[in-house]
Amino acid sequence: MKITWILLLLTLLPGWADAAEKENMSRAQATFKPIPVHPPAIKGNKATKAKVDLGMKLFFDPRLSTSQLISCNTCHNVGLGGADLQETSVGHGWQKGPRNAPTVFNAVYNVAQFWDGRAKDLQTQAKGPVQASVEMNSNPELVVRTLKNIPGYPPLFEAAFPGSRDPVTFDNMAKAIEVFEATLVTPNAPFDRFLNGETGALNTREQAGLRIFIDKGCAACHGGINVGGAGYYPFGVREVPTAEVRPEADTGRFKVTNTASDKYVFRAPSLRNVAITQPYFHSGKVWSLRDAVVVMGSAQLGTTLNETEVNDTVAFLKSLTGKQPKVGYPLLPPSSDQTPHPQLK
Amino acid sequence: MKITWILLLLTLLPGWADAAEKENMSRAQATFKPIPVHPPAIKGNKATKAKVDLGMKLFFDPRLSTSQLISCNTCHNVGLGGADLQETSVGHGWQKGPRNAPTVFNAVYNVAQFWDGRAKDLQTQAKGPVQASVEMNSNPELVVRTLKNIPGYPPLFEAAFPGSRDPVTFDNMAKAIEVFEATLVTPNAPFDRFLNGETGALNTREQAGLRIFIDKGCAACHGGINVGGAGYYPFGVREVPTAEVRPEADTGRFKVTNTASDKYVFRAPSLRNVAITQPYFHSGKVWSLRDAVVVMGSAQLGTTLNETEVNDTVAFLKSLTGKQPKVGYPLLPPSSDQTPHPQLK
Repeated sequence: MKITWILLLLTLLPGWADAAEKENMSRAQATFKPIPVHPPAIKGNKATKAKVDLGMKLFFDPRLSTSQLISCNTCHNVGLGGADLQETSVGHGWQKGPRNAPTVFNAVYNVAQFWDGRAKDLQTQAKGPVQASVEMNSNPELVVRTLKNIPGYPPLFEAAFPGSRDPVTFDNMAKAIEVFEATLVTPNAPFDRFLNGETGALNTREQAGLRIFIDKGCAACHGGINVGGAGYYPFGVREVPTAEVRPEADTGRFKVTNTASDKYVFRAPSLRNVAITQPYFHSGKVWSLRDAVVVMGSAQLGTTLNETEVNDTVAFLKSLTGKQPKVGYPLLPPSSDQTPHPQLK
Repeated sequence: MKITWILLLLTLLPGWADAAEKENMSRAQATFKPIPVHPPAIKGNKATKAKVDLGMKLFFDPRLSTSQLISCNTCHNVGLGGADLQETSVGHGWQKGPRNAPTVFNAVYNVAQFWDGRAKDLQTQAKGPVQASVEMNSNPELVVRTLKNIPGYPPLFEAAFPGSRDPVTFDNMAKAIEVFEATLVTPNAPFDRFLNGETGALNTREQAGLRIFIDKGCAACHGGINVGGAGYYPFGVREVPTAEVRPEADTGRFKVTNTASDKYVFRAPSLRNVAITQPYFHSGKVWSLRDAVVVMGSAQLGTTLNETEVNDTVAFLKSLTGKQPKVGYPLLPPSSDQTPHPQLK
């Protein structure tokens, strides 16, 4: 009977629903920002077509790894939401890395890179996995020697870094990858259209989830353009998650700053495309978005979300899946007799 | 002095050079065929847009492997000439496979697939690596369960196999991959243009190499549309190669037919794009094309090619690099809560 009355009221007074949507929209607009359709400029690293094209080749080139099997795209698969669907990434020698690979999509809008923010930008980030022994296991000297001995690369570096006397460098590799990665943005999610003022872009359930997301406090850490990615917060501020979800040995940002208050502090991940980039958390131990929402409710908000609240929040989070970037698989310059051979050990 | 005289004669009598090129062209046209610009039809497996698109997604989807890390493209990288630049391919658990990965490009024109021809077509081939424990390490049951539990796939299979009551099958996976792989052809190599009657498509050195290639007998095994790939021949017919290049334990086609005369018999590989798909032979132990030509001279022809002959042959082989296919990286349907998780063990 109650529902019938509400439906009747809504029919008689459609202005009420409209007003509620507008109010919800205004609150959202004060907390979040839509993803711009065009990729952002990088300070000190101008994106030219030559540089973006070079960065795309490097992003897909497994010869940046010593095995010549692992590329940036291995863990940041552009066909899979810019991530790898693994608990924690698998690298050189089938070693399992320490943390879940964050998506590369929209990463340019994060305040810093990696779960602990130890790289200030994508350029710095790009150099990490290339050298990590559990990831690509290479080093700057080998990378540069490899690239210089793939005859197609030096002219591409010259075109991307005109006027440079020695354009094939580890730094320039990272710069090219950075401007390519900056193109990997996912605008036009239903939530972006809502933020841009399109009524009806979110359905009733998604709007209810948005309200919960703001009212319960999720948006305090997950706000801004990336719905997260903008600041550092302790994981387990209200209730410590299980040791599986928050392994004791990984103290997060404490390892970067060596400051006691940074123990188990992580950069709040962006929730953009979260519905297609499972599993969740830095441990990658939670596979379902529902479960992840429940964990966040207890760990961060000290609350037990009820069934409807969880469902609505999940519905809202699904509205954060944007238009995925279309990437053409690049033709990579062929190896030559001088190119170093792969090393599997 | 002699060279001066020849140059003088060539200047005075350009007709001679023209006639020589025409004769060379006629002989080539009798032995080889250009790669058609359009992909061939597959008997019993009609290529529709829906099926090719599905096949492309499956080709790039690492979820066909139990680790969810290895896709067809891992060993048949469309950015690297359709191969992987590895001695022998590396698969599940970082295991090294037994043989060098043949390129997928133009494979549709091979008489059969694998080095020993044990798969009669690409459809049969596609099922092999998916199940091989050293490659993708999966099985038909798990593949079908995975695909059925990635919500985006069933509708794509329905569109690709209309009217089928149960379209998501291991067979249909292979059929879709086959029609996609059939699009991976590389027409318009300089040699194709020469075969199509374009004078000057091959320079003097490349033409000299072509003459050697026919006169010395290379073309006897490496003829037809794929400059090879059409028949089975013993490796080491005149002189047994080193045990590194032809490992004793790998008896080739003998393992398929159990016939004594098939010991160390292999399908002659296609030499299309050979200059960009090193290393060479089923063992992958030879990295330079020069060295590979020398090995073939002694092993198959019982001859020691001189410096000029090797150089000219290599120049000719480089003219077999065709226009590489442009492939857009496909967006893969997202996993769901029901999708099986990756298994790394």
